[in-house]
Amino acid sequence: MNVRIQHPPTPNSLRVRNCLWSYYSSPHQKLSHSSNFKSPIESSEKVLGCTVNYSLISRHFSSGVQPQYERSSSEDQVDPFSLVADELSVVANRLRAMVVAEVPKLASAAEYFFKMGVEGKRFRPTVILLMATTLNVQISKPASEGVVDMFSTELRLRQQSIAETTEMIHVASLLHDDVLDDVDTRRGIGSLNYVMGNKLAVLAGDFLLSRACITLASLKNTEVVSLIATAVEHLVTGETMQMSTLAEQRTSMDYYLQKTYYKTASLISNSCKSIALLTGQTAEVAMLAYEYGKNLGLAFQLIDDVLDFTGTSSSLGKGALSDIHHGIITAPILYAMEEFPELRTVVDRGLEDPANVNLVSHGPIKFIKSNRLSPLSKGSLIQALEYLGKSHGIQRTRELAAKHASLASAAIDSLPENDDEDVQRSRRALIELTHRVINRTK
Amino acid sequence: MNVRIQHPPTPNSLRVRNCLWSYYSSPHQKLSHSSNFKSPIESSEKVLGCTVNYSLISRHFSSGVQPQYERSSSEDQVDPFSLVADELSVVANRLRAMVVAEVPKLASAAEYFFKMGVEGKRFRPTVILLMATTLNVQISKPASEGVVDMFSTELRLRQQSIAETTEMIHVASLLHDDVLDDVDTRRGIGSLNYVMGNKLAVLAGDFLLSRACITLASLKNTEVVSLIATAVEHLVTGETMQMSTLAEQRTSMDYYLQKTYYKTASLISNSCKSIALLTGQTAEVAMLAYEYGKNLGLAFQLIDDVLDFTGTSSSLGKGALSDIHHGIITAPILYAMEEFPELRTVVDRGLEDPANVNLVSHGPIKFIKSNRLSPLSKGSLIQALEYLGKSHGIQRTRELAAKHASLASAAIDSLPENDDEDVQRSRRALIELTHRVINRTK
Repeated sequence: MNVRIQHPPTPNSLRVRNCLWSYYSSPHQKLSHSSNFKSPIESSEKVLGCTVNYSLISRHFSSGVQPQYERSSSEDQVDPFSLVADELSVVANRLRAMVVAEVPKLASAAEYFFKMGVEGKRFRPTVILLMATTLNVQISKPASEGVVDMFSTELRLRQQSIAETTEMIHVASLLHDDVLDDVDTRRGIGSLNYVMGNKLAVLAGDFLLSRACITLASLKNTEVVSLIATAVEHLVTGETMQMSTLAEQRTSMDYYLQKTYYKTASLISNSCKSIALLTGQTAEVAMLAYEYGKNLGLAFQLIDDVLDFTGTSSSLGKGALSDIHHGIITAPILYAMEEFPELRTVVDRGLEDPANVNLVSHGPIKFIKSNRLSPLSKGSLIQALEYLGKSHGIQRTRELAAKHASLASAAIDSLPENDDEDVQRSRRALIELTHRVINRTK
Repeated sequence: MNVRIQHPPTPNSLRVRNCLWSYYSSPHQKLSHSSNFKSPIESSEKVLGCTVNYSLISRHFSSGVQPQYERSSSEDQVDPFSLVADELSVVANRLRAMVVAEVPKLASAAEYFFKMGVEGKRFRPTVILLMATTLNVQISKPASEGVVDMFSTELRLRQQSIAETTEMIHVASLLHDDVLDDVDTRRGIGSLNYVMGNKLAVLAGDFLLSRACITLASLKNTEVVSLIATAVEHLVTGETMQMSTLAEQRTSMDYYLQKTYYKTASLISNSCKSIALLTGQTAEVAMLAYEYGKNLGLAFQLIDDVLDFTGTSSSLGKGALSDIHHGIITAPILYAMEEFPELRTVVDRGLEDPANVNLVSHGPIKFIKSNRLSPLSKGSLIQALEYLGKSHGIQRTRELAAKHASLASAAIDSLPENDDEDVQRSRRALIELTHRVINRTK
C-alpha cells in the first residue's frame, strides 16, 4: 500500500526543519540502560492469572526515563489552561447550546460529553484559543476605534467557532470509536453506547458532524470547511489503518507514524492552520501554525502510547496496556523490535494466531462479523513485555516525543515578531504546553 | 415534544398552495370500499406460521386502488431516466473516482454501493440533473460565445457535484442505518456491515460524509454547504424520531409526516434548492425547486409505506411488512386507526409488551443494550392487518401521495416560462417522475 502523509511542503524560509521522517530511520543510537527498567518476567505467573496484573507489571516501566527536552530557563512560565479558562467556559456554554437537537433523545445523546464535569481536558480548544491570540494581527487603529473593536470581536467569535467545531468533531469521533470498539467507559462515566445504545451513539456522532459542518459553513470560508473536512477524513483513514490485519503494516514504524498523524495530529494541525487563515495571516504563518499543531499532536500521541505501558488504569481513565491488548502495536514495542529483531517473530506469531480469525458463515459465503483486531495471544504478550523491559523502547519513544515537542516549540519561535503582551504570553503558553504534553503522567 | 417541520415560508405569489398540513387533519372522507380489499383474517393461521406468509396476505392489499392523480393528456411523455442516462454514467464514474480512499480497505468499503450493477435506482441524481436543466438560465450570448460555453460547462460540473454529493450522503445514511438495524441485505447483495463488518461500515459512512463535505466546499458557496449539512442533520433527526418508544408519538400522523420529511424529503428538497442557488436563480424559484423536491420525496415515501404492505419480498428487495415487523407504524395503519379507533388500542398494547423492553444489567446500573424498537407482538400484528384490510388505510395513503405528487408537479408548472426545448423536456420529465413515483410497484 502506498500511503503518504499529506502535509504541505515546508517553506524554504522556515527555520525549523522537520526531521521527523529521518529521525526514526537513523542508525540506532546507543542509550544508557536505566537500572529502573525491570523485566516483567518476574511477575509473569501473575500475568497469566488476570488482566489487572498486567497494569501492575506495567508500572515497572513508569520511571527512570527523563524527557530529553528541557524548559529554557529564560521562559516565564504561564499556565496555558488558566490563560484561557474564562474563554473556555464561554466556548463550553456555546457548545452546549449548539448541540441541542430538536428531538430530546438526540439532544441528550449529543450533549452527553459536553456536560459540566465530563468535558475532558479540553486540550484542543485550549490550543486553538491560544493560537488565536498568538496570531493576532495588530490593526493600526484609524479614526474610528469602534470599527476595529467590532472587527476584533467578530474575528474572535469566528476563531471560537473553530474551537467549538474541533471539539464537536473530536467528540463525534470518540462516540463512533467507542461503538466500534465496544468500549464501556469514557471520561470516567459510562460510554454513550453503553448508556444509550449503539444506535443513538452512531446517530449522535453523525449529528455532531453535521452540526460542525453547518457551523463551519457559517464562517463563509470554504478553504476552512475543506481543511476541517479533510481532517475528518483523516480520522477515518487513521482508524481504518489501525484496523489493518497485515502483520507487515502493524509492525512498521512508518505505518504507525502515518496512522498517528491521521488519527491524532491532523485535526489539531488543520484547526491551527484554519485559525491562521481566518486571521488573514500569510501562507508561511499558516504553515507554522500547522507545524505547531502537527508536532504537538504527534508528541501527545507518542506519550499516550508510552503511558499505555507505564500508567495505571485509574490514572489513565481506561485500561492499562489497552492498545496491545487490542492488538495495536505502538512505538515502544516497535523500537524494542529494532533492538531485538526476534521480538518481531514473537509479535507476528502472536498476531497471526488462527484462532483470532473472525469469520462467520452466512449461507454459502463467509462474512466478517467483526473488524476487531486479533489481540496478541497471552504467551506472546508476556514475551513482548519482557523484550520491552530489556529494550530502550519506552525511552526512545519519549525521545521522539521530545523531538516533536521541540519542533512545535520552534514553530512558535519562528513566528513574526510581535511585542503585544497578550501575544507574547500566549506564545509562552503554547510552548509551555509542549513541555506539559511530554511530562504528563495521565 | 415540540417538533416543527422547518420549511421556509411559501411566497405569496406561489400558485401552488401547500395544503399538506391541513389535508390529513380534514374530516374523514367517505370513500367507496373496494371489493378487492380482503381481510387478512382468512389466512391468519398461516400468518402465525412464518413470515413468508405475511407477504402472501399482504398481496390482498395490492390492487383495487387507483391513484387519484392522472396524467394530463396534453403532456408529451418523456422517460426521465433515459433523458439523463448518459450524464448519469458520467456522474457514476466520477462518484467511483471520488470515493477512492488512500487505504484499500476503506476504498473497498466506500465504493461498495457505487459499483456497476448495485448503484440502485439513482433516483436522487436523476431528479437533480433534470432540475439543473429545468432551471437553466438562458444567457444572452455576447460577442464571445466561448465564454458562455465555458460558463455553462463549469456550471453544469458544479450542478453535477450536487448530484454526486447527495448520492454520497444517501449511501452514507444507508450504511449507518444498516449497521443500526443489523440489516443483512441491501440492493440484492449482502449489506456492507455483513460483508465487511460493522466497524468498516460505520467508518465508510463517515468517510463518505467527509468526502461530501469536501466536495461541497469546493463549490465555494457556503449557503449550499449549510443547506446540505442541514439535510444530513435532518436524516439523523428523522432516524431518531423513528426510534421513539412513546406509543403516543409512534401512532401520531403529525409525527409520522414530520419524520418522513426529515428522513426522505429533506435531502432531495435541499439538493433541488441548492441547484437553484448555484444557477443564480431568484429566491422564489429556489423555493419552487425546494417544494418540488419536498413533495416528490413525501409522495415517494408514502408509496414506499404502501408497498411495504402490498409488495412481495422479491419485488421490494427487502422483507415485505418490514416496517411493522420492526415496530414502525406508517400511514396506512395510522389512517386505519382513524377509521377504527379500537385499532389504536391493539397497536398500543402490541407496542407496550413488557417483553420488548431492552435493558441489560451492567453492575448496579441498567443499560440500554440496543435501541431496536419493540416490534408488534404477533397477535397484535395479525389484528392490525385485519383492521387495515377492512379500512381505507392503503387507499387514503395513496391519495395523500397523489396529492403531494400533484403539488410537486404544480411547483414545476409555476416556474417562469422558458421556451428552450431542453428546459421544456426536462420539466415534462420531472412531472413524469411524479406520476411514476405514485404508480410504482417496487
